[in-house]
Amino acid sequence: MGKRKYTIGVDFGTESGRAVLVDAANGKELATAVYKYSHGVIDETLPVDGKSVRLEPDWALQDPEDYIRTFKRTIPAVLRQSGIDPADVIGLGIDFTACTMLPTLADGTPLCSLPDYRRNPHAWVKLWKHHAAQPEADKINATARQMGEAWLARYGGKISSEWFFAKTLQILAEAPEIYAAADRLIEAADWVVWQLTGVETRNACTAGYKAMWSKREGFPREAYFDALDPRLEYVVEQKMTRIIHSIGERAGGLTPQAAKWTGLKPGTAVAIANVDAHVSVPAATVTEPGRMVAIMGTSICHMLLGGQEQLVPGICGYVEDGIIPGLFGFEAGQSGVGDIFAWLVDNAVPPEYHAAAKKRKVDLHQHLEDEAAKLKPGESGLLALDWWNGNRSVLVDVDLTGLVLGATLATKAPEMYRALIEATAFGTRVIVEAFNNHGVPVNEIVTCGGLPEKNKLLMQIYADVTGLELKVTASAQTPALGSAMFGAVAAGQAAGGYDSIFEAAQRMARLKKETFKPNRAAQKVYDRLYAEYLTLHNYFGGGGNDVMKRLKHIKADVRSR
Amino acid sequence: MGKRKYTIGVDFGTESGRAVLVDAANGKELATAVYKYSHGVIDETLPVDGKSVRLEPDWALQDPEDYIRTFKRTIPAVLRQSGIDPADVIGLGIDFTACTMLPTLADGTPLCSLPDYRRNPHAWVKLWKHHAAQPEADKINATARQMGEAWLARYGGKISSEWFFAKTLQILAEAPEIYAAADRLIEAADWVVWQLTGVETRNACTAGYKAMWSKREGFPREAYFDALDPRLEYVVEQKMTRIIHSIGERAGGLTPQAAKWTGLKPGTAVAIANVDAHVSVPAATVTEPGRMVAIMGTSICHMLLGGQEQLVPGICGYVEDGIIPGLFGFEAGQSGVGDIFAWLVDNAVPPEYHAAAKKRKVDLHQHLEDEAAKLKPGESGLLALDWWNGNRSVLVDVDLTGLVLGATLATKAPEMYRALIEATAFGTRVIVEAFNNHGVPVNEIVTCGGLPEKNKLLMQIYADVTGLELKVTASAQTPALGSAMFGAVAAGQAAGGYDSIFEAAQRMARLKKETFKPNRAAQKVYDRLYAEYLTLHNYFGGGGNDVMKRLKHIKADVRSR
Repeated sequence: MGKRKYTIGVDFGTESGRAVLVDAANGKELATAVYKYSHGVIDETLPVDGKSVRLEPDWALQDPEDYIRTFKRTIPAVLRQSGIDPADVIGLGIDFTACTMLPTLADGTPLCSLPDYRRNPHAWVKLWKHHAAQPEADKINATARQMGEAWLARYGGKISSEWFFAKTLQILAEAPEIYAAADRLIEAADWVVWQLTGVETRNACTAGYKAMWSKREGFPREAYFDALDPRLEYVVEQKMTRIIHSIGERAGGLTPQAAKWTGLKPGTAVAIANVDAHVSVPAATVTEPGRMVAIMGTSICHMLLGGQEQLVPGICGYVEDGIIPGLFGFEAGQSGVGDIFAWLVDNAVPPEYHAAAKKRKVDLHQHLEDEAAKLKPGESGLLALDWWNGNRSVLVDVDLTGLVLGATLATKAPEMYRALIEATAFGTRVIVEAFNNHGVPVNEIVTCGGLPEKNKLLMQIYADVTGLELKVTASAQTPALGSAMFGAVAAGQAAGGYDSIFEAAQRMARLKKETFKPNRAAQKVYDRLYAEYLTLHNYFGGGGNDVMKRLKHIKADVRSR
Repeated sequence: MGKRKYTIGVDFGTESGRAVLVDAANGKELATAVYKYSHGVIDETLPVDGKSVRLEPDWALQDPEDYIRTFKRTIPAVLRQSGIDPADVIGLGIDFTACTMLPTLADGTPLCSLPDYRRNPHAWVKLWKHHAAQPEADKINATARQMGEAWLARYGGKISSEWFFAKTLQILAEAPEIYAAADRLIEAADWVVWQLTGVETRNACTAGYKAMWSKREGFPREAYFDALDPRLEYVVEQKMTRIIHSIGERAGGLTPQAAKWTGLKPGTAVAIANVDAHVSVPAATVTEPGRMVAIMGTSICHMLLGGQEQLVPGICGYVEDGIIPGLFGFEAGQSGVGDIFAWLVDNAVPPEYHAAAKKRKVDLHQHLEDEAAKLKPGESGLLALDWWNGNRSVLVDVDLTGLVLGATLATKAPEMYRALIEATAFGTRVIVEAFNNHGVPVNEIVTCGGLPEKNKLLMQIYADVTGLELKVTASAQTPALGSAMFGAVAAGQAAGGYDSIFEAAQRMARLKKETFKPNRAAQKVYDRLYAEYLTLHNYFGGGGNDVMKRLKHIKADVRSR
């Protein structure tokens, strides 16, 4: 046995970036470090000097400098903590939220870092949850339908306002000077790999899931882009590239500058960029069909592998080799989950519960979970639609909003808390059924992310609502572990890593022993409640009553006066 | 001009009783006193010694001893405060919540005061908002429809679970021993007048509005009662009476015992009992058609006079001479209004707003109102159905529940507060339109009760939503003033009072100068929101989707296990 080798994964989340240093032989996590972005999510005013620049509703930006700071703070920290010799770190992988994109100069300089553009919101990073490009998404969808573009069906028939070309089109429409100044339009995932390696590469995962690219057909044709806007006709040639790298490839080696930032050796292998959700799949032991991976946090991403091409209405999309080589990677999502519970905790819980939580020395989420756990399924009389942040799958509609029904004068906060958990579980069941009904079976759910660690009541409710067994990854930082695994694959077996992600998954990924199995009695009650959920879901989300959209229009009308 | 004469009104509310002493010549209020019922609303456990007796959900009881204590505490207090000679108090009137009823012995002794029955919940006063008699109300309605009972149409086609025979039938069904032991079944309004005068009388108002009696047809026929339950066939003869007194009559004179309780002179004229809402109409200056009186507090009662008989679907009922002699008195209601705002304030407002209110030295309602007033109509994007306590008019369905729609991750408590106010305003508009569409026109709304005093935002929203001018009674205690007016009528002109309520109203009732007129721009937005409200109202309340009822069934199923 040779000397132990190590690999580092860096996971760029919504609020912070996290590095984990693991043993390449067995995935054991030796050190972890988190950097909370200094500007976090920018959704009110730009962090600029002088007169403040206010953002419109639904905007969500970030500062790319926060990503560089993540490297500078977290990698030296994990090296220090573990005491590992940087020479024994064979690879580095990263994963990112997506679609999170930015405009840059030809050398990668973000436009927002230039004095000329710093006060223009469109020069900044548009975070995945920037939801202001809905008119552009509508145009993308209408034009694609009109022109009979075949790729539309791959995305469940609808492109989200969160995706790459919706955001691009919004820049073009609202800030043509930024569009013109942008030599490159690039996913933040690829941008940070560029900063590490000095080489601009593009990964198949974000290209496939967020930018309408496929291995067989490439990007949409130029005539389509021309129809969207003549200035967009050659966007791929002018500001992107047609060279797309497969997940698992090596992007390059660390530059001397990046080596200085991180304390690693120049030339250390860096993997092609990946997406937080997708990179979690092999880290959750899943490299085969039938086992859905649910990354559960502020939102949920559902990842599922299939042996063949299938059209599933309302899913986010599928990409051949997009997650695991040789398989079709299907993705679906719920745009608000932990976010909704946090909304309740922050906005609708009276002081007595805050005081009780404090007295018990638990956080308010935990206290409400404990109180909610005392209720039986159906006992609250409440039913909610989990659309506080719109609906990603299967309705693909950011203009849908949250609903609570069944309130009485006796309704209490723990009942609301439980109803919101249940609503998100029903949302998951809608997605599972969509896959099952369209030839991509789901036999179990492997979960990771913050929620499975924190909320056992939630896990049991999801098992009871879906009727499926829920498993949990052993790692508390699955995406970072997945990135580290891809770092080991980028390094290759000869360097002490692996030649494929299948081998890496077998050696480095593990599940917890504890699982959550459906309870028959609870399942029966939830079947009744789910039927009610589905009726409301279809009524408000399927065109029966578009009141949610009309209220948004009225709100916009009133605000514009 | 003779010596000044005075009259006292006592208003029995849900949580407390209130006496006001007024100048009979001009209605000027000289003193007021409130007694908070020592047992308040009994809805969890009976106030008895020994092992606790828990109540089922939806129960709401009271202790009749609290009513006697109200007389003992408040009347001496107003005499003391005003320094008036009790010999100059010419009359006493009372008004009560309704239907609030109790079983007694032949001498008026409440069954709940007897050791044998004290631990039986059915022996206590069933408060108006006791909502556990819905199965009995369903039976009353189904049987009446089946037998083609003509009186059903007078009540909008549906009897409420709150009413007299629903409560009676529940006693019979669940506690036949209490039914058997009850020599009398009587409205609490009539019971307190009995305690004052020593004479059992029954008033036309509660008989007409709550017990299916009418001046022309009397009570329902015995065959109908027999069909409900053979033991009920002779309920009117056995436990009630067919002698019903008109509003404005004299019930009797104060007994020596009641004189001792109150400090008034024995023989002081006591008016026939009245209902809080109905007694407010002349006190709000309304003795003619076209002017709706809205008594706005925890709930709203809508009172309207009409020159002729009209069938208005979904109203609570109409009674000839039920409010003002010579006119048809129409009644409608919203079962949750101030209650819903209080629910929000108690159950869904986070600590920061509590702290801000404290800092500003205003109560939390006021703080939320001030914050909500900064929003434009439609700006919150929220829409609610105001059914936290069911829906009285026009759906007459206690099994309906509250709904909020339009929530996003940015939704804040003041937006919720405003949405709930708006929802109750839409509920009022539904009622106004029902009257307008069925031949009982509404040209303005005269308001009284706690809300108009406290919440100017609410008043403006009601004007904007209904498109009607809202006026406010000058008295802060309109029902008590109305009762005092009827006390003056019971005394008669010869004693220094009046011979009719018309004269009393002209002399004793007044409105404030400040009124609330609709704002055109706000009206336009609210017309759009009202259209959405109405669609949801009809979908969830009109049989389009009975999910609210099914959730209640599921809740009951789960709880019963």
